[in-house]
Amino acid sequence: MRKQDLTIVKIGGKLIENEERLSSFLNDFSALNGLKILIHGGGNMATEIATKLGFPTKMIDGRRITDANSLKVIVMTYGGLINKTIVAKLQALQANAVGLCGADGNSIVSKKRAVKEIDYGFVGDIETVNTRFINSLLEQGCVPVFSAISATREGQLLNTNGDSVAAEIAKAMSSIYNTQLYFCFEKKGVLANPQDENSVIPEIDHKKYQQLLEEKVISEGMLPKLHNCFEALDHGVNKIFLGNADVLKMGNSCTKIIK
Amino acid sequence: MRKQDLTIVKIGGKLIENEERLSSFLNDFSALNGLKILIHGGGNMATEIATKLGFPTKMIDGRRITDANSLKVIVMTYGGLINKTIVAKLQALQANAVGLCGADGNSIVSKKRAVKEIDYGFVGDIETVNTRFINSLLEQGCVPVFSAISATREGQLLNTNGDSVAAEIAKAMSSIYNTQLYFCFEKKGVLANPQDENSVIPEIDHKKYQQLLEEKVISEGMLPKLHNCFEALDHGVNKIFLGNADVLKMGNSCTKIIK
Repeated sequence: MRKQDLTIVKIGGKLIENEERLSSFLNDFSALNGLKILIHGGGNMATEIATKLGFPTKMIDGRRITDANSLKVIVMTYGGLINKTIVAKLQALQANAVGLCGADGNSIVSKKRAVKEIDYGFVGDIETVNTRFINSLLEQGCVPVFSAISATREGQLLNTNGDSVAAEIAKAMSSIYNTQLYFCFEKKGVLANPQDENSVIPEIDHKKYQQLLEEKVISEGMLPKLHNCFEALDHGVNKIFLGNADVLKMGNSCTKIIK
Repeated sequence: MRKQDLTIVKIGGKLIENEERLSSFLNDFSALNGLKILIHGGGNMATEIATKLGFPTKMIDGRRITDANSLKVIVMTYGGLINKTIVAKLQALQANAVGLCGADGNSIVSKKRAVKEIDYGFVGDIETVNTRFINSLLEQGCVPVFSAISATREGQLLNTNGDSVAAEIAKAMSSIYNTQLYFCFEKKGVLANPQDENSVIPEIDHKKYQQLLEEKVISEGMLPKLHNCFEALDHGVNKIFLGNADVLKMGNSCTKIIK
């Protein structure tokens, strides 16, 4: 028997910061047929609030360090304000949203990233996704909305990469569903020329990916995203799309990632 | 057939602010047998963070006004930091907690309080509790943990009195369960003499309540709490207990409210 479809969408911080674009996106998302899950990051809001609260943002080699105060602000903004605002907006659009972080229902269990050259602080690498709990929500018509926060088995909340949360949920749910994964960010897709917004590469398979890597066409920010994508495809995810806030609109250009 | 038991516990802000007392309470709560729901306020954390962010707390006639900025801070702190911290701690104690606000699963629908002499701002009065959604979580072994935030059908989040959230959930769930409701606050119970911590009145029924009102024994802060209690008893709640963080411990003194 063919598995039922499940659409999983990750939206980035820039989209969330723009109220008009967020509303337009949530309209499109709520109108999607069938089962769906939303994962959101938080953009610059956490940094702004941390600064106002007098918590400086620590960076080492250009990488953000999540100390105890940063974690608090992340849980407040991503897990609280942004998550609940999105849930309330979706409810008004008749999508029965339920806002979660990884601690809720033990849905995303992680371990604290081991300290090697750099101590990233309270950052989580995902170990398991609780497909049973997430599926119980889907089966009763709910739309899970995840902030990019996970937790250890010992009850420590951890800041977690939003793309990884989306990819790990998609991989895990592929055991039950025919999954398609959308990554929404600022660009219309993967660009052949980073200066040209309209140079979207319509389709990338493994061979094309290797070729793009060799030609150094892919911008640095896209590298982990694409790595995540191919890893997800190798672990059961069916289709992946990269695009901007309009990616869910019919006929909109974006990049499709295939095996 | 006798209904199954359901224990609903509301904890106040002062308890939440004290990490040691909160841990001790969560230990007791997680050890409770049977189905349970936790409701929490947020104490002074929202005011402290609002002040740091440069949002002054507005008061009219000694009542707090929830303007747009206050609401943001309340959703951040109650709905985010406090809610998720409690959920993660309960998960570590093997209670399968799921953190919610009223927008999640449309669990607590309210309307914005009408402006009469005072405009309280973004404050909600509860209209309906989604017993079906809450029950679906209980039936799969989850422990719902509610922050005192509700939402309108139009997607507006609203600051909501924590005691009212607890009482309305208890009343609504009484259609399915044999409910007992615990209010945990700073005192050991209702005191016959507010200066004497050990003057706990062990039991108050309707007749005793009238008598205490006439004698003006009840402190002003207790009045709405007791009003809430009798209203809940009149709407199906089975037993109500008022006490401090140790109220769940066996043999601890507290005030029992009966019809």
